[in-house]
Amino acid sequence: MDGPLLALDRADGTPIGVQLVEGVRRGILGGVLRPGDPVPSTRALAAELGVSRSAVVAAYEQLAGEGYLEMRQGAPTRVAQLARDGAAHVGRNGARPATSADRSARTVAPDAGAAPLWETSAPRIDLRPGRPSTARLDTRAWRAAWRHAAALEVSNDSPPRFGVPRLRAEIADHLRQARGVVCSADDIVVTAGTSEAVSLIAATLRNAADRPAAVAVEHPGYPTARRIIEHRGVRTTAVPVDRDGISIEHLHRIPRPIDAVMVTPSHQYPLGGRLPVAARLGLLDWARDADALVIEDDYDSEFRHLGPPMPALASLDDEGRVVLVGSFSKVLTPALRLGYLVLPANPGLRAAIADLRDAEQCPVPGVAQEAAAALLASGAVRRHIAVTSRDYAHRRRLVQATLGELPGARLSGLDGGLHAVIEFDAAGTSDVVVKRLAATGIAVSRLADYSVVPGDEREGIVFGYASPGDTPLAEALTRMHETILDAGAGQR
Amino acid sequence: MDGPLLALDRADGTPIGVQLVEGVRRGILGGVLRPGDPVPSTRALAAELGVSRSAVVAAYEQLAGEGYLEMRQGAPTRVAQLARDGAAHVGRNGARPATSADRSARTVAPDAGAAPLWETSAPRIDLRPGRPSTARLDTRAWRAAWRHAAALEVSNDSPPRFGVPRLRAEIADHLRQARGVVCSADDIVVTAGTSEAVSLIAATLRNAADRPAAVAVEHPGYPTARRIIEHRGVRTTAVPVDRDGISIEHLHRIPRPIDAVMVTPSHQYPLGGRLPVAARLGLLDWARDADALVIEDDYDSEFRHLGPPMPALASLDDEGRVVLVGSFSKVLTPALRLGYLVLPANPGLRAAIADLRDAEQCPVPGVAQEAAAALLASGAVRRHIAVTSRDYAHRRRLVQATLGELPGARLSGLDGGLHAVIEFDAAGTSDVVVKRLAATGIAVSRLADYSVVPGDEREGIVFGYASPGDTPLAEALTRMHETILDAGAGQR
Repeated sequence: MDGPLLALDRADGTPIGVQLVEGVRRGILGGVLRPGDPVPSTRALAAELGVSRSAVVAAYEQLAGEGYLEMRQGAPTRVAQLARDGAAHVGRNGARPATSADRSARTVAPDAGAAPLWETSAPRIDLRPGRPSTARLDTRAWRAAWRHAAALEVSNDSPPRFGVPRLRAEIADHLRQARGVVCSADDIVVTAGTSEAVSLIAATLRNAADRPAAVAVEHPGYPTARRIIEHRGVRTTAVPVDRDGISIEHLHRIPRPIDAVMVTPSHQYPLGGRLPVAARLGLLDWARDADALVIEDDYDSEFRHLGPPMPALASLDDEGRVVLVGSFSKVLTPALRLGYLVLPANPGLRAAIADLRDAEQCPVPGVAQEAAAALLASGAVRRHIAVTSRDYAHRRRLVQATLGELPGARLSGLDGGLHAVIEFDAAGTSDVVVKRLAATGIAVSRLADYSVVPGDEREGIVFGYASPGDTPLAEALTRMHETILDAGAGQR
Repeated sequence: MDGPLLALDRADGTPIGVQLVEGVRRGILGGVLRPGDPVPSTRALAAELGVSRSAVVAAYEQLAGEGYLEMRQGAPTRVAQLARDGAAHVGRNGARPATSADRSARTVAPDAGAAPLWETSAPRIDLRPGRPSTARLDTRAWRAAWRHAAALEVSNDSPPRFGVPRLRAEIADHLRQARGVVCSADDIVVTAGTSEAVSLIAATLRNAADRPAAVAVEHPGYPTARRIIEHRGVRTTAVPVDRDGISIEHLHRIPRPIDAVMVTPSHQYPLGGRLPVAARLGLLDWARDADALVIEDDYDSEFRHLGPPMPALASLDDEGRVVLVGSFSKVLTPALRLGYLVLPANPGLRAAIADLRDAEQCPVPGVAQEAAAALLASGAVRRHIAVTSRDYAHRRRLVQATLGELPGARLSGLDGGLHAVIEFDAAGTSDVVVKRLAATGIAVSRLADYSVVPGDEREGIVFGYASPGDTPLAEALTRMHETILDAGAGQR
């Protein structure tokens, strides 16, 4: 520790808010504040330091976002139990509170004198899944697309409720080329990423049901999707997955009525299975019996490394039950916040989504829609998928070669996409591995964090291999190899 | 009618989808299909015409969006009762289904041989409220801002959950300059327009309550906001407004528990009142008693034509109860889909919104956030507000001069903003006026459409004066003058 807790220095160029955050963080990292300790009330601390209360509130809020503090309405704010792990939350789309907060702090004080203390908790090599590589994006085409869109006449009206026609047509083309999905521009709804697509569908289910609506989700699965659905007031029910994907047998056992099931048939998230044809047909049969929708989350299937791509589940659907959901978060970048849903021939669903969008409107800015359309039309997206596919396939082989043959550890999930899973035989291994890697500055996620059923956690880790550069990735894989070997030896 | 209903011409360059829409529309406009008539099922029509069912579904969906057809799940699709009025829906932000659909159709077939039939229903001069003027926007600064944003390094992560720091800082500056709101970047949450801001708050209320959550809304008011709140599974309760804004007396009478009240204190929407200080304090007292939030919808208060601007209600709040919501939809354009909320010093609310955004993420694309920040920093937004303020003030005087002294009609709502209201003494006048204006190609909205309590509609019209050019506006005002005089004479 290079200073007392919360001695603010107004002569220092560092903004007071940043000093507040650093001071408390330093107190926690240095052990002055321990897990479970209450921190001073915002009012008391503001008075003590002579700063505005809102500055203290903002600092606490940032620290809560980073996982250092726990805030509860009506209870004192305390130091979090997990404050020193730095990986309390996971998100497939990089929705990690720590990232945003860290980036914010860095931007506010880019040149703060001392090396920023929060680097201690921010990983040096971040393998938490969710981020693609943007290093080889054709930035000329990117800039040209935005330039084109910004030069169009500035509309004084909201974008059309289902999106800009040109972008809808380009997305339909993209899906035909990249995924073999046959659809037309009329079937596409432009969304603010997968998040808004799932939120929209959940809202239509809630509005349509004359009882609490319910959606079945995969377990383990994508916990963020479950939260998005629940934020619309819709219940979720867990259905276990096996090596191939969602278990149709278990699906039949869940109580009805159930309004929809959300699945990742092309590449189960996170385990990586691919749902075989028989199970796909079984899933559609179940949907007919249950009079339910199927939300097909096609989050990374543009990238297929092993075996031929399988057509989307939506292509087997002739009853208007499957809604395909996808985004450009893996294909380009989650910074674009651009996704879509493909509407089946289901007039009731179309009318319900139209009704929702008449109120909530299409949230994607007109210029962003035009730019994305121009980028797709230029061929740059197609070329980028080809380039990154080769990169990812190479990295996948590297992962396989380094981590494929470890005792007590099974590597899987590598047939497609940008992430992999290692399951461990011995209980407690993942905790040991995650902590030891964190100590060397490498962040991976716990498979347990993808559990949808509290208490039913699998022993393993999940990691992405797309985002770091070649050298950090090689270092990380070597460290993972050593760490897993050591942990296995320690367990025996 | 220049052809039989639904004779498709595959040799014609016009896409089949457009021909389908035109054919059915022609049938309705030509009287072949009458209000209440069922139309053929999508399956039957697709089979009869030899086109895909999804093409027919899309055509019906577009026609439903335009107000020609009524679709209900489980019931046959029928010709709508209001099909010939062309103004079934209203929205403050231009969320009119017809607009999007029309624009879409135009874009699909810009050069279709014959004059497009739907021009018959699209208004020639559209005075429905919601759209600002973008004619005098500094397009050089606009393009430069997007160019700057597109040239930044492409991030491979989602934007920070509360928005890009630079934009948050610029919005705080903007609010200080344009509205006298004292807040810091830390207090700003960047949103996809007012819609998402309201949706986020509604979701936190629903999540926090251990019973069905409820929000009080103004009546008459902004029906879209009510729908957005209800789409989160939150009930709404109407509170009447008087000439000054929401009635505090009535607010005290609504049953509790109630979780929030949504108000437009600067310029009541649509009636135009401004809440006096005593009522503001009364509102905050009520909020304390009820332990409720106040959602202050500050949708157009950058434009104040008469009397000094009043500080935002949020500036009177020292208990962390007022959330200010605003957007750049009036200041720039709703096409930008950019809004914000200003968080009060309320750690529980901050944590709840952070939790929601961890799941749903900040929906505004990174490039759009950087471009908006650059545009604000350039001073172009401030200059644009100054220029359009003068224009709107001039137009307001024109409206006052033309429509201010009509017998049986009271013009109001003109102290600020971009729209006005005319209330009529005689029942039925607004129907007559709206229909006669529509016959000359001029669209205005019914005040009845802003009713939040079915059966309690006021007699009047609401119209915007910002969006048309000078000449069409002058024509429209002259026609309105004649039409209202005639309607009054007819009534007596």
